Amino acid sequence: MSPEEFRRYGKQVVDWIADYLEDIESQPVRSQAKPGDVRSMLPPHPPEQGEPYENVLRDMEQVILPGVTHWQHPSFFAYFPANASGPAILGDLLSAGLGVQGMVWATSPACTELETVVADWLAELLGLPFRTDGVAGGVIQDSASSAALVAVLAALRKSGRPGRIYVSSQTHSALEKAARIVGSEVCVVDVAPDTLAMDPVLLHALIAEDVAAGRKPALVCATVGTTSTTAIDPVREIGAVCREFGVWLHIDAAYAGVAAICPELRWINDGVAEYADSYATNPHKWLLTNFDCGVLWVRDRRPMIDALSILPEFLRNQASESGQVIDYRDWQVPLGRRFRALKLWSVIRWYGAEGLRAHIRAGVSLAQRFAELVAADPDFLLWEHHPFGLVCFRPLRTSPEQTLAMMEKVNDSGALYLSHTKVADQVLLRMAIGAPATTVEHVDQAWRAIRAALPGA
Amino acid sequence: MSPEEFRRYGKQVVDWIADYLEDIESQPVRSQAKPGDVRSMLPPHPPEQGEPYENVLRDMEQVILPGVTHWQHPSFFAYFPANASGPAILGDLLSAGLGVQGMVWATSPACTELETVVADWLAELLGLPFRTDGVAGGVIQDSASSAALVAVLAALRKSGRPGRIYVSSQTHSALEKAARIVGSEVCVVDVAPDTLAMDPVLLHALIAEDVAAGRKPALVCATVGTTSTTAIDPVREIGAVCREFGVWLHIDAAYAGVAAICPELRWINDGVAEYADSYATNPHKWLLTNFDCGVLWVRDRRPMIDALSILPEFLRNQASESGQVIDYRDWQVPLGRRFRALKLWSVIRWYGAEGLRAHIRAGVSLAQRFAELVAADPDFLLWEHHPFGLVCFRPLRTSPEQTLAMMEKVNDSGALYLSHTKVADQVLLRMAIGAPATTVEHVDQAWRAIRAALPGA
Repeated sequence: MSPEEFRRYGKQVVDWIADYLEDIESQPVRSQAKPGDVRSMLPPHPPEQGEPYENVLRDMEQVILPGVTHWQHPSFFAYFPANASGPAILGDLLSAGLGVQGMVWATSPACTELETVVADWLAELLGLPFRTDGVAGGVIQDSASSAALVAVLAALRKSGRPGRIYVSSQTHSALEKAARIVGSEVCVVDVAPDTLAMDPVLLHALIAEDVAAGRKPALVCATVGTTSTTAIDPVREIGAVCREFGVWLHIDAAYAGVAAICPELRWINDGVAEYADSYATNPHKWLLTNFDCGVLWVRDRRPMIDALSILPEFLRNQASESGQVIDYRDWQVPLGRRFRALKLWSVIRWYGAEGLRAHIRAGVSLAQRFAELVAADPDFLLWEHHPFGLVCFRPLRTSPEQTLAMMEKVNDSGALYLSHTKVADQVLLRMAIGAPATTVEHVDQAWRAIRAALPGA
Repeated sequence: MSPEEFRRYGKQVVDWIADYLEDIESQPVRSQAKPGDVRSMLPPHPPEQGEPYENVLRDMEQVILPGVTHWQHPSFFAYFPANASGPAILGDLLSAGLGVQGMVWATSPACTELETVVADWLAELLGLPFRTDGVAGGVIQDSASSAALVAVLAALRKSGRPGRIYVSSQTHSALEKAARIVGSEVCVVDVAPDTLAMDPVLLHALIAEDVAAGRKPALVCATVGTTSTTAIDPVREIGAVCREFGVWLHIDAAYAGVAAICPELRWINDGVAEYADSYATNPHKWLLTNFDCGVLWVRDRRPMIDALSILPEFLRNQASESGQVIDYRDWQVPLGRRFRALKLWSVIRWYGAEGLRAHIRAGVSLAQRFAELVAADPDFLLWEHHPFGLVCFRPLRTSPEQTLAMMEKVNDSGALYLSHTKVADQVLLRMAIGAPATTVEHVDQAWRAIRAALPGA
């Protein structure tokens, strides 16, 4: 495709996306496709001859869109938000257009240095103590899962293998996956039943027992904002335990970490500056930056680099050998890397700190409103902890099966999309607010639809 | 950013990229930035107020471009190509615009089913026996490194831990990295000095010795087209050894695998259909699909899924429980996933099999021409093996240090960009041809510039 053809089709695609975003509310939130529907509409064999790009755009409408669940829909309340935004899409487009591969500094200095700068900017915006100088620093990963794996590898480098990994029952499954990948054992620490936060006294007892038995504790993962209910582990108390035993403390703040951009929510960082060895949060969830963009910071990059650096001849270069540059390939599992810093840079510049704070506050405020609607309703129970955009709740007089059936009914309608979790054998519904297009009307409509789905309503 | 603003700025960005691609030859191929140059031009603190998008585009010119090494430049001959193309960029743009997260089928059925279809299309185009039905199948990964890690984990699931991993001295460092991540030992099998291909007799001896000693062989990685010199391991003979001992055979064809789209190069698949348990190639290298887009196929998905599947409550859904759908989160390390199939689909449809074959043939033909220029020159030695787009060679009468200095001189000029490797203590220069914009003139100019950089020339 020539640059001139790209210019023409590129503008058609931009229009297609702008139209899609303008009309998104005409689509059912969750795809109504059945298994195999999309595949059955696609040719089983690839085309021998090339086709005009118009064919792709036609099939986007006719084949792809019916199979898409619209994560950018203002009534998407499932999982956590996966915010896209105009400047993020444009930053990603610039990255694809440049087509550089930033595996080492030398293969595109701007790819590395802009990443350092935006990681520092974000650390400053969130009040995190990980500015890139000395041995600390930040790096963009594809996800908090990969960030957790990198943290585990760094921790194992310090502890030796096999090192044990300590989580709570509420920790994201990514930690179990990372442990399974490296062949480490996972120890599950109980949580307080009311807050679902890890019990640091039990953690202390578990680690002490392991140390006494000659086992190696490698890493504790504390979560700020669990996936299930946004529970917050007591980082300061957990950190003190880690300090006592020389264990790596990783903070998984995948969803909630970005909320610290608001001074009134900065309390979620309590203990981080004193105790965290690594910290991960995903701008691709609630900070207007489309997937994938997770940021991992480490207090000391050396064990991570020791764990991940392998230098084949073809990557040797003067800049790396000078020690004056960062080679981010040693901060991640894969070798190759996209110029992902461009989208985060675009987002921070377009919105500014003010705009990003306004976005977080809008989500928190809508969640507060939704929680008030639930609390005022005698047919529902509100889960009291909802400092961010997620509100958990359940109908008071339905069985877990009935609650799930009610959720399916709501989701099947296409009017909104909820997800669920389980706490103490009860099914809780999860209303995760945070899409930039969501307004008070969408939240109120969602509440009416949920109420109307109550058995007997 | 409103859809209307996105429409306006999106077209500006499309024009910016089209202009960039049209004028790319006015840029030095390798960035002339020194360590810290880019960072020093960027504000140390994030903006409090948002800025107009024009500021970002201005800084793309003034701050970012001088720090970019132009991988799409027709005189970029370093490493391997990282082809971008118009339809790939547009497919990525559509993915960013939709902003879906395809971790499981249910979160966007089209994201999963289109990926299955394009993986099948590519398998058919390359003559690989891994169509998604029964237990085989393909999946898009970010890179061949991640694909190798997934293959290693599947193999360990079958062999038990700690399982040994067998590579040659020419295998990509990604295998050593994967082994280090999982805590496995790597056994290096010697290569034949002339072809640099793994010696299957030595492999047999090594595995037999390990089995006799009670050690567990887990995986052998055979490479089709090594990074250093595009050497090709004897897959059929290696496969027979793997079959005898029940060891997983992974084929790393990251760069060269896509060449099999041409019937005259299909011989590189010899032995794959009979013996390979997994196979990885990267359309993001030489198949016009911008990074990241690596495809991994497995003959039997079950050990991979057993190794990687963890099902937290929040991901439970009816479609997954029906067994009728694929959840690609269990085919990779991270949980989240982008709609990467769109770009590969765009590329295959725009170019068709014919267009993709023409692209590969253009690279092979230019490499052949370059090899003839080298072979005809009494001051240079040609590395005889160059079936793809890579030609290795060296000046006959320079020391390794002088050869490297000569390469730096060429690269510093900005006229072209070469990389190097080492074979038997000799430095070879690597001329990797494969960018779609490269013509015979660029190749001839490169040769003149290399000749002119000979000491004393």
